[in-house]
Amino acid sequence: MWTFDAPPIEYWRKTYGFAPDQKWLDHVRLSAIRIPGCSASFVSANGLVMTNHHCARSCTADVSPKDSNYIETGFAAANLSDEKKCAGIYADQLVSIEPVTDRVRAAVTATTAAQQARQSAAAAGSIERECSQSTGLTCQVVSLYQGGLYSLYRYKRYNDVRLVMAPEEAIAAFGGDPDNFTYPRYDLDVTLLRVYENNAPFHPTDYLRWSANGAAEGELIFIVGNPGSTGRLNTLAQMDFLRDIGYPAQLAIYKRALGIYRETIAHDSAAARRFQNQIFSIENSQKAVGGYLAGLVDSARMAQKRAFENEFRARINADPALRARYGRTFDAIAAAQRELGTMARQSRNYGFGPSATLAGSALMAMAAQIVRVASEAAKPDSARLPAYRGAGLENIKKALLSERQIDSNFEKLAISAQLRLAQQELPPDDPFLRAALAGRTPERAAEALVSGTKLNDLSVRRALIEGGPAAVAASNDPLIVLARAIDPLNRGVVARADSLNAIIAANAANIGQALFATYGTTLPPDATFTLRISDGVPKSYPQSGTLAPYKTTYYGLYERAAAFDYKDPFSLPQRWQARKDRLSLTTPYNFVSTNDIIGGNSGSPVINRNAEVVGLAFDSNFVGIANRFVLNPETRGAEARRGPAPLMPALSAPPRLCGKAFLRYLCYLPTLLTDS
Amino acid sequence: MWTFDAPPIEYWRKTYGFAPDQKWLDHVRLSAIRIPGCSASFVSANGLVMTNHHCARSCTADVSPKDSNYIETGFAAANLSDEKKCAGIYADQLVSIEPVTDRVRAAVTATTAAQQARQSAAAAGSIERECSQSTGLTCQVVSLYQGGLYSLYRYKRYNDVRLVMAPEEAIAAFGGDPDNFTYPRYDLDVTLLRVYENNAPFHPTDYLRWSANGAAEGELIFIVGNPGSTGRLNTLAQMDFLRDIGYPAQLAIYKRALGIYRETIAHDSAAARRFQNQIFSIENSQKAVGGYLAGLVDSARMAQKRAFENEFRARINADPALRARYGRTFDAIAAAQRELGTMARQSRNYGFGPSATLAGSALMAMAAQIVRVASEAAKPDSARLPAYRGAGLENIKKALLSERQIDSNFEKLAISAQLRLAQQELPPDDPFLRAALAGRTPERAAEALVSGTKLNDLSVRRALIEGGPAAVAASNDPLIVLARAIDPLNRGVVARADSLNAIIAANAANIGQALFATYGTTLPPDATFTLRISDGVPKSYPQSGTLAPYKTTYYGLYERAAAFDYKDPFSLPQRWQARKDRLSLTTPYNFVSTNDIIGGNSGSPVINRNAEVVGLAFDSNFVGIANRFVLNPETRGAEARRGPAPLMPALSAPPRLCGKAFLRYLCYLPTLLTDS
Repeated sequence: MWTFDAPPIEYWRKTYGFAPDQKWLDHVRLSAIRIPGCSASFVSANGLVMTNHHCARSCTADVSPKDSNYIETGFAAANLSDEKKCAGIYADQLVSIEPVTDRVRAAVTATTAAQQARQSAAAAGSIERECSQSTGLTCQVVSLYQGGLYSLYRYKRYNDVRLVMAPEEAIAAFGGDPDNFTYPRYDLDVTLLRVYENNAPFHPTDYLRWSANGAAEGELIFIVGNPGSTGRLNTLAQMDFLRDIGYPAQLAIYKRALGIYRETIAHDSAAARRFQNQIFSIENSQKAVGGYLAGLVDSARMAQKRAFENEFRARINADPALRARYGRTFDAIAAAQRELGTMARQSRNYGFGPSATLAGSALMAMAAQIVRVASEAAKPDSARLPAYRGAGLENIKKALLSERQIDSNFEKLAISAQLRLAQQELPPDDPFLRAALAGRTPERAAEALVSGTKLNDLSVRRALIEGGPAAVAASNDPLIVLARAIDPLNRGVVARADSLNAIIAANAANIGQALFATYGTTLPPDATFTLRISDGVPKSYPQSGTLAPYKTTYYGLYERAAAFDYKDPFSLPQRWQARKDRLSLTTPYNFVSTNDIIGGNSGSPVINRNAEVVGLAFDSNFVGIANRFVLNPETRGAEARRGPAPLMPALSAPPRLCGKAFLRYLCYLPTLLTDS
Repeated sequence: MWTFDAPPIEYWRKTYGFAPDQKWLDHVRLSAIRIPGCSASFVSANGLVMTNHHCARSCTADVSPKDSNYIETGFAAANLSDEKKCAGIYADQLVSIEPVTDRVRAAVTATTAAQQARQSAAAAGSIERECSQSTGLTCQVVSLYQGGLYSLYRYKRYNDVRLVMAPEEAIAAFGGDPDNFTYPRYDLDVTLLRVYENNAPFHPTDYLRWSANGAAEGELIFIVGNPGSTGRLNTLAQMDFLRDIGYPAQLAIYKRALGIYRETIAHDSAAARRFQNQIFSIENSQKAVGGYLAGLVDSARMAQKRAFENEFRARINADPALRARYGRTFDAIAAAQRELGTMARQSRNYGFGPSATLAGSALMAMAAQIVRVASEAAKPDSARLPAYRGAGLENIKKALLSERQIDSNFEKLAISAQLRLAQQELPPDDPFLRAALAGRTPERAAEALVSGTKLNDLSVRRALIEGGPAAVAASNDPLIVLARAIDPLNRGVVARADSLNAIIAANAANIGQALFATYGTTLPPDATFTLRISDGVPKSYPQSGTLAPYKTTYYGLYERAAAFDYKDPFSLPQRWQARKDRLSLTTPYNFVSTNDIIGGNSGSPVINRNAEVVGLAFDSNFVGIANRFVLNPETRGAEARRGPAPLMPALSAPPRLCGKAFLRYLCYLPTLLTDS
């Protein structure tokens, strides 16, 4: 995951015999773009943009006509005027990178970690403002190596992005949750967008041409995109915390949320559609976190991490200057993580339940907000809880003062699940439990709270908000009473956790600086959802006692559908069944490679050494996810021989699909590439 | 793996709602047959027999014409006269089972384990002889529950078996070693034979009809065949020994042998064909033993085994009669296994190297035989080493006195590998090492031994054999000198290991008796390569983060071939490529089920509750192999929900293949079934 201002040319030359020049790098950088949450690229002279279907899913749904759903039917614009404007999607093109480490550092004069962090942030903010004003570009100061290095990234932002083509989701996400994060894979996770300027297609100076041949096994390929975040600079203490406490707790919350959604759906089939997105998103997170955890419990990887940390600490300790500055950082992080560990049960349970998307209670959230609006409004803005600063307070009030649909059964399930978990984790005499249960079972307490509260009535909420602190203090609504009791408990654990996390962040920044001081750019920085370039090769690997092939073909799509008797999520849209004889089934479909990517890379173009598109990154397999913290060393370069590789299924070059002028939208792509 | 005289009718009724009557059981038993090393079945009124391609591989090779090889080309007899007689293949049909436990037991009067074993064997032998003489049948006394129960199995033996159809091996064993013991799978491991009597097709009274529909997911199916051996009645101590010492040593020998073969092939490409069968066989064993070992290190399975053994021992100890008889058996086995463990390094290394099929040295083996022929010939037959009893001595002499091709380079590799392993495992002053190395490196020693010996010269061997003990004692051939030194070391460890294994066997027999006394036939006996019936259902299961489908289709064959660019072992015969459009690719191909099978079951028919063929068992997957010692409890019956299932890919019903009259030999089967 190399940055474009520090590409490892020598490493590439040595490993692959390829050393791109600055022109190649500039062309690739300018062809790549970033869209909200995902990566993408220009792939035609007329502003056509390639990304994943799942990256433009909301647009595809939003622009659907009333009587149809492009998610189900797919969409292909008949001509330019048929292309549909996507609200909320913009495209950022990285125009330049400038080092600003010295300017940020110069602004840091304080001695405490928290103050230093504020000063760095302020300096970054003023650099960004100055850049925007002088250039008209979108400017971002990126902190690399956890603050070891600061770079100013200047983007040209394109705000008019339109939907051109999207396959049916049954094909784009074929295999659904079971096949997610796995390989061999058989989906077509691609969507085409187009950037417009002045209501006409934009003509980019740089865009990626198409490879006529796709990628061969063992051939050097690059993935150019915006990996979201990795934790490879984390210390062992941070990883131990995630392994033993953080991730298991997160998985428990996902499990709890899925349980609530599924129980609700079992009694109310209409709820299935309502919760579909949440369930999909939680299942995805569950597999991802499961994979991260798998990496943390992999003894070979962790031994590698331990060896690296030992060597790194030895280097720091061997240099008096480094030692004076960074000698204590690892232990300081470990101490803070230990304390976070000891208070984890309280941190997890002293609160108002998980967020709405994780099946939290809407009533409980409203009660908490009513109590907090009353107290926070009285404070100066900077002293408020973060969510209540700036426009936050008014937005929260506005939401509380609008009509809300409350599902009582769901609320009871959500609150009783929250209380059950608290009961399992906290001692019987815990103040949270005393306040919430008051001797009742979780189910009884939830029943009483939901039946007893009047907060589903807008006028009751209005009276409490308009009545201010006095009205809230006087309320005997059972949920307000409970929220008042939880509020101080929650503030206590949150404040302590915040200060511990600030200590960790400040020391992590020191480690980043020490790392950069010790190793320079020979180690790439952790992912920051900014543009990176990652090298690798398509490659078969051992799995389940046999070999996974480096690529799949359309035969495999039809095999997997037939093998599951066409049951969801292995069903095929009607026209994919009807017209399969018009497809050349040996056409490469998905492939897997040793490139290093992670969430945020979705939609990244995969290119060969001629900077031609050979694929489109859309997922990682389970072995690859485990690379979040420690990159398996056996995966670097073409000489890797044994063991699991970090894997990246990618769409093979679409032009091949069109040899038989098969399904219209599959061929739409090269048509546009050649004639528009 | 139930016996036909104790089918678990109540368990089947409760689990599947199916309780076959005696007529059903008799029909199925008489339709099933056993061939050397494999299972099979009658599938037509004209004596057609279905088994696996790999079960009749030697016949298919042997009957090939000089200018062609049916292994490569496949074979389908044009008519009856074109069917080819298989030398060495006979078919045994189980005619009846009779309990003979009391007769065997009555003959046992001795007090030592070894004597008791001899008396049991003698009693079994006389029952078999008496049976054969009075009935003309092939009779076998089968020891079940390690001697807890004895049954007389009477077989009708058919000696004229002919080859009718065999596919190309590229299809029959598609996927080769990588796909062996894995699933999803795409091979057609089937061959058709025919039983003849009096030079005409035999007309069996019982044969299996064909299901028109194949097997559906979740449907009750039975596998009827001859599982070779399991170790489920082994004690924990026996399993610990295999896990820690036995299997790791076995795997080391496989690895060593493959290393030698591959190094030889690297310098001599002609050797590839010579070693092909050995390499295939070792790779197969390597995967199988790897799977057995995986079961032994699976903590959930072993916890289950431990719980069972504890309960079993508690039951024995709670009953004074059982306790008096069997109370000490477990500890006696554990003590013997411990001693075998302490002498394992000597046992492994005090010898003449592995057998020829495991890349042992031919020269070393000849030297050992020359030394032993001299000493064994002088003893009475019963006092000789087992290999030298009866006709053994003369056969060994005959082999020594025939011309042999010796590959010096291979010999050096084999001997130096043997000595290297010994050097790693034995202390420097060990007598074996002193004799073999005499201060040299293993490579130097091997070089000196192979260059210095004259044993590759037939006349030298003849002179030593004809010269008897005096000539051998006087020889200064370096290999004879070494063999003389190793001989007493080897006799010492072998004798001690034999006596410890006799103690284990005698106590294991006691455990079998105790088990049978305690649990009766509610637990099936360990596999004994005799006819069993195993229930289960075709079933999807979780694998590699996603689901493995319960079946595969012909799409998958073409997918896997294309995904590997048609490289071996994923290549397709020309006509399979040329004629694929004539095949309905959604035809079910292989499927996987929860039935309990193991090596020896190869070729077993898979039938539905109407006793119709729905498939042909040909392999187990990796999860299934691990059932050798402990059957995963989640796999019993249709209610199994989570976790890995024991898996058994089986060929789906061939008739479906013929809807399109595709490849001749695929359709040959139903053609024969209907018109002959």
